Amino acid sequence: MSALRPHPDRLLPADPAVRAVARRLYDEVADAPILSPHGHVDAGMLLRDDSFPDPATLFVTPDHYVTRLLHANGVPLERLGVRQKRESASPDSRDAWRAFCEHWDDFLATPVRFWIESELHDVFGVDVQPSAATADELFDQLSERLAQPEFRPRALFERFRIEVLATTDDPADDLAAHRALAADPTFTGRVIPTFRPDRYLDPTAPGWAADLDRLAAASGVDCGTHAGFLDALRARRAAFASAGATSTDTGAPDAHCEPLSDADAERIHRAGLAGTATPEQGVAYRRSMLFRLAEMSADDGLVMQLHAGVIRNHHRPTFDAFGPDTGHDLPAPGGFTRALTPILERFGTSETFRIVLFTLDETLFSRDIGPLAGFYPSVYAGAPWWFLDTPAAIARYRAAVTDSAGVAKTSGFIDDTRAFCSIPARHDMSRRADAAWLAGLVTTHQLGEDEAAGIARRLVDDIPRATFRLG
Amino acid sequence: MSALRPHPDRLLPADPAVRAVARRLYDEVADAPILSPHGHVDAGMLLRDDSFPDPATLFVTPDHYVTRLLHANGVPLERLGVRQKRESASPDSRDAWRAFCEHWDDFLATPVRFWIESELHDVFGVDVQPSAATADELFDQLSERLAQPEFRPRALFERFRIEVLATTDDPADDLAAHRALAADPTFTGRVIPTFRPDRYLDPTAPGWAADLDRLAAASGVDCGTHAGFLDALRARRAAFASAGATSTDTGAPDAHCEPLSDADAERIHRAGLAGTATPEQGVAYRRSMLFRLAEMSADDGLVMQLHAGVIRNHHRPTFDAFGPDTGHDLPAPGGFTRALTPILERFGTSETFRIVLFTLDETLFSRDIGPLAGFYPSVYAGAPWWFLDTPAAIARYRAAVTDSAGVAKTSGFIDDTRAFCSIPARHDMSRRADAAWLAGLVTTHQLGEDEAAGIARRLVDDIPRATFRLG
Amino acid sequence: MSALRPHPDRLLPADPAVRAVARRLYDEVADAPILSPHGHVDAGMLLRDDSFPDPATLFVTPDHYVTRLLHANGVPLERLGVRQKRESASPDSRDAWRAFCEHWDDFLATPVRFWIESELHDVFGVDVQPSAATADELFDQLSERLAQPEFRPRALFERFRIEVLATTDDPADDLAAHRALAADPTFTGRVIPTFRPDRYLDPTAPGWAADLDRLAAASGVDCGTHAGFLDALRARRAAFASAGATSTDTGAPDAHCEPLSDADAERIHRAGLAGTATPEQGVAYRRSMLFRLAEMSADDGLVMQLHAGVIRNHHRPTFDAFGPDTGHDLPAPGGFTRALTPILERFGTSETFRIVLFTLDETLFSRDIGPLAGFYPSVYAGAPWWFLDTPAAIARYRAAVTDSAGVAKTSGFIDDTRAFCSIPARHDMSRRADAAWLAGLVTTHQLGEDEAAGIARRLVDDIPRATFRLG
Repeated sequence: MSALRPHPDRLLPADPAVRAVARRLYDEVADAPILSPHGHVDAGMLLRDDSFPDPATLFVTPDHYVTRLLHANGVPLERLGVRQKRESASPDSRDAWRAFCEHWDDFLATPVRFWIESELHDVFGVDVQPSAATADELFDQLSERLAQPEFRPRALFERFRIEVLATTDDPADDLAAHRALAADPTFTGRVIPTFRPDRYLDPTAPGWAADLDRLAAASGVDCGTHAGFLDALRARRAAFASAGATSTDTGAPDAHCEPLSDADAERIHRAGLAGTATPEQGVAYRRSMLFRLAEMSADDGLVMQLHAGVIRNHHRPTFDAFGPDTGHDLPAPGGFTRALTPILERFGTSETFRIVLFTLDETLFSRDIGPLAGFYPSVYAGAPWWFLDTPAAIARYRAAVTDSAGVAKTSGFIDDTRAFCSIPARHDMSRRADAAWLAGLVTTHQLGEDEAAGIARRLVDDIPRATFRLG
Repeated sequence: MSALRPHPDRLLPADPAVRAVARRLYDEVADAPILSPHGHVDAGMLLRDDSFPDPATLFVTPDHYVTRLLHANGVPLERLGVRQKRESASPDSRDAWRAFCEHWDDFLATPVRFWIESELHDVFGVDVQPSAATADELFDQLSERLAQPEFRPRALFERFRIEVLATTDDPADDLAAHRALAADPTFTGRVIPTFRPDRYLDPTAPGWAADLDRLAAASGVDCGTHAGFLDALRARRAAFASAGATSTDTGAPDAHCEPLSDADAERIHRAGLAGTATPEQGVAYRRSMLFRLAEMSADDGLVMQLHAGVIRNHHRPTFDAFGPDTGHDLPAPGGFTRALTPILERFGTSETFRIVLFTLDETLFSRDIGPLAGFYPSVYAGAPWWFLDTPAAIARYRAAVTDSAGVAKTSGFIDDTRAFCSIPARHDMSRRADAAWLAGLVTTHQLGEDEAAGIARRLVDDIPRATFRLG
Repeated sequence: MSALRPHPDRLLPADPAVRAVARRLYDEVADAPILSPHGHVDAGMLLRDDSFPDPATLFVTPDHYVTRLLHANGVPLERLGVRQKRESASPDSRDAWRAFCEHWDDFLATPVRFWIESELHDVFGVDVQPSAATADELFDQLSERLAQPEFRPRALFERFRIEVLATTDDPADDLAAHRALAADPTFTGRVIPTFRPDRYLDPTAPGWAADLDRLAAASGVDCGTHAGFLDALRARRAAFASAGATSTDTGAPDAHCEPLSDADAERIHRAGLAGTATPEQGVAYRRSMLFRLAEMSADDGLVMQLHAGVIRNHHRPTFDAFGPDTGHDLPAPGGFTRALTPILERFGTSETFRIVLFTLDETLFSRDIGPLAGFYPSVYAGAPWWFLDTPAAIARYRAAVTDSAGVAKTSGFIDDTRAFCSIPARHDMSRRADAAWLAGLVTTHQLGEDEAAGIARRLVDDIPRATFRLG
């Protein structure tokens, strides 16, 4: 039964002289408040402030980072409770937790292990490694903790020093939870929505007409025409902004954005409602909508986040059995420079427009993203994301993007997580990785240590604040 | 005349504290038996156990890693004896060896230099660097060694501590050499065949009909129809399995694998036999065959190795003069995630199916291979291969793949070599590179040293054994 | 007001033992003469030898590396004087300089900062960092320096120890400045032209017919036919060669090079002159011309530099307002192996032909460029270029290319700059980066220190001299 005791200098460089610098840089920001401008926590969880039901429901079942690697190592998703509705306890939680503990070593040398070790140790005071032998003991220990008031969401929110937490929300969402939280005098955190219209962009998607009906109901604007649909989106963007939103988010298979003429857009819109739109029309409409969303951002100043290049639901049998977000969304080859030409030619130098580019294809770091962010005032280089949100990939990102874009045109860290308790660990990883990178520049005399300390502080404060217009 | 004395700590990190850890990790595996689950040594060489004829025929002429870089630096392939039949002595061997020694410094800082230095020093006891001045002396010294019984193939096989050696074989091969070796009580090594059907997959390839005749003869199954052809392959797979094979191998220009309907496949099959298949039909048939091979693997449990993305025989004049495998097979841009959808959707979660993905396009490490191996139980991340089988590329591979797939879903090292005497040097390079990588994780507190030692041991034993079902 | 005092060991590795080796390797080459086989300095500047007018005109306005990042951080190009004709003083120079100084920290951790720090300190004796507070003082101090005779171009040329400086020139250029410099007994530098025919390759480019008229006038060969056009190019290549040129340069959107038949080429040529060539014809003609240029190189032995994969003038509004080379030329995905097949199949093993491949797409380092340079005697791996001319990218290049091509098939450094005063800083950065790389190989026992010293010396002397046939 080996000890779980994360080293205070983990992720900092091994060389003693470099580590000393990295340690000082890290100490500048280790306790800084967390700005989380992009994530997937449910605002309702904070509103209700219910206890988390059990360890598996907290750490395993809803976290596709965890379930995918367990699945890759032979654990069926059923055993992990994946079919269960998220965050509701299930009779099999203890068994799911056992599966996770038995396979703990499959996470060795992965960022998931870093995050969960930090969570277990720093948040829950656990000091033994998960294993088949310790699974039950840990399940009981964690369950006991979770029942205590100081482990409820709001208490943790405060303990985590979260200053801003952005959620991701459907345009038809009424944002009641956000408004209730803002109005609640007992909760002082800032929880802001993010406008994510993905569901409405493809007129060939199943249920598109019904989705538009919901949007029309939410906005009070008829969506029977393309023009009406755009007006509905504008109305909901305004509602989001007045509920505190500062940005939008779009996940797209690619970054193409050629605008359709009004007539073509209306024709495809009608075909979509009639269920007769072709796949080619669907793609053309979706790409045109990316342009229209940029146009709206240039109008209303909501920062446009673009997460492009994902193949969703790669394994259809798993999707059919378990639904989306079950670990088989996979990276696609990317490309921003040519694809984004329509948006950048039109809005690239607009003072109100801002776009943050995220990718799963590292080849874009030095070829597309750095050079674009190094010319266009509106373009920011999004932090390494998802499969690339790791110490090694962060090092590659910094080395590849900084050369052409500098530091000020990078976005600052986003945790992009549904796993609420992993938020501090994820930001900590990023702060350590940036300190390690900066210490390398200091000790090779590419930066003064005071300059590096200034950058470290800006990366967790001014830079995300400015990029996402958090004020 | 400078000394050839490979440093005992070569490839281990420079920092003394990190090196100390790396050294301990390397010591755990330095003398471990060699599992070689993919390579190109000729089983007949071990059966005959003849002496190697001379140094050029051993080190230069048959090794396209060597001849290509000599050619790039101005040495004509003729001078290297490339036109000669492999492994037969030639009157010009001494001159070929001289050319190699004169250009020895063109290999500085390349893995070929590492391998050959290790071979010369560790296997043959050479202690001077090759050069124009030492060429003749070395030729004589090595020739003398090669004539001694302890430098015959079987003696070296034993000395190299090879536990398993997989060859690569044509489906029509009768595997007589393998059976004779297995039946020979004086040889205790395990030499197993690998089923490589590349030659039969493209119905527009010259000689396809004749090849099918050979396959029909070998299998006893008529190949006049597509269905018969599939049955013949199945019969030969069964014969390979009973001769000890645990895997198949396919080298393909790309990884597309859309299955044809039976009717379409039969029609193209007939066209291929008649010599009238179009290039488009050839591609469609070849891609469909990749699916059929996966289907067979799901049936019989032979592990499917996929080496995709090679442009064969790039320089036609060289091919016309010297034939294939003469140094101008070159990498193509790759892509697995979309291309492999048909196979993975059908067999990706099958317990019998297993596929190991190899690439020459590093962009796939973090974008395709890691994420696929990190979800699909059947997918393994193949070791860096060919142009990427180098210390620097191994470090990039580990950094890029581990984050999303962990360690257990990587394949373990494959040497993929025709150069028998380089096998220990290649495995040694891999063991050193992995020790260096792990030591970096230990000294940045991402792994405990005991955990790293466990990984080091698994990487040379359990992991290749499990990946390739070596038992 | 912080001090500007570049560290003598900047860019060398932090580890003391590795740095000691790197320092010794760097010392071998720190003061070696500069061979600059590819750049954009104006020969006329050296002929006239006028003083540089002011700091902004020297450091800011003409340098798109500088203006692009200022623009990205919100400085309008107008303020930087970009609309001004290059190298002529402007009334707003002081304000442009102020903008640059105010944004000095936006260059932190970029190579531009390294270059300009070195220039300010080493060339101009400046010892305070630029900032809003120091801008005026620096402007005055630098202006004073620039008025002194020792800061005129020829004095600096000598002080920089430039042995060879290659310019980039239009085929219709009369090379009068080059001839006058060569004939001037008071100037002993070697300034050689480079034949860059880009303007003439696309028959759909605006002004193509007029350009051909100029070429016809310059060459004395009628360009009304494709055959005449080729003869005119041959004549001008001969004139360039007799003016000292050893190489040509082509910047192309891609590397495709399928030759057209004479009849097709003539037909498109006529259509181009008539203004009726289609975009597809334009592309086909341009690609065919790449083949013809290779054919000419194989005939006359001028080294062919290929800089492929640039999207020119990405932001049309900026182009319309400010013209070309204003910071929004951007990298395109590349690919050499398949695209160059026609040229390499025909000339790849020719002794007279030589091609140096440059890319902005790093994925080509290990996939295309290393493997091609590691087989074809005619192919050289061009140094990291433009967005990749940085310490971090140089390290990636060396790690990725050397494995398959060794060192001798890399090109040696090119500075590719219009910023004359940055030439020594750029070569110095490259020498430091290579010393750092080599020291890593020495201290991991992949090279002896004497071998590394030999490589360091060859990289700044024999290798560029041989690659570019500088004699």
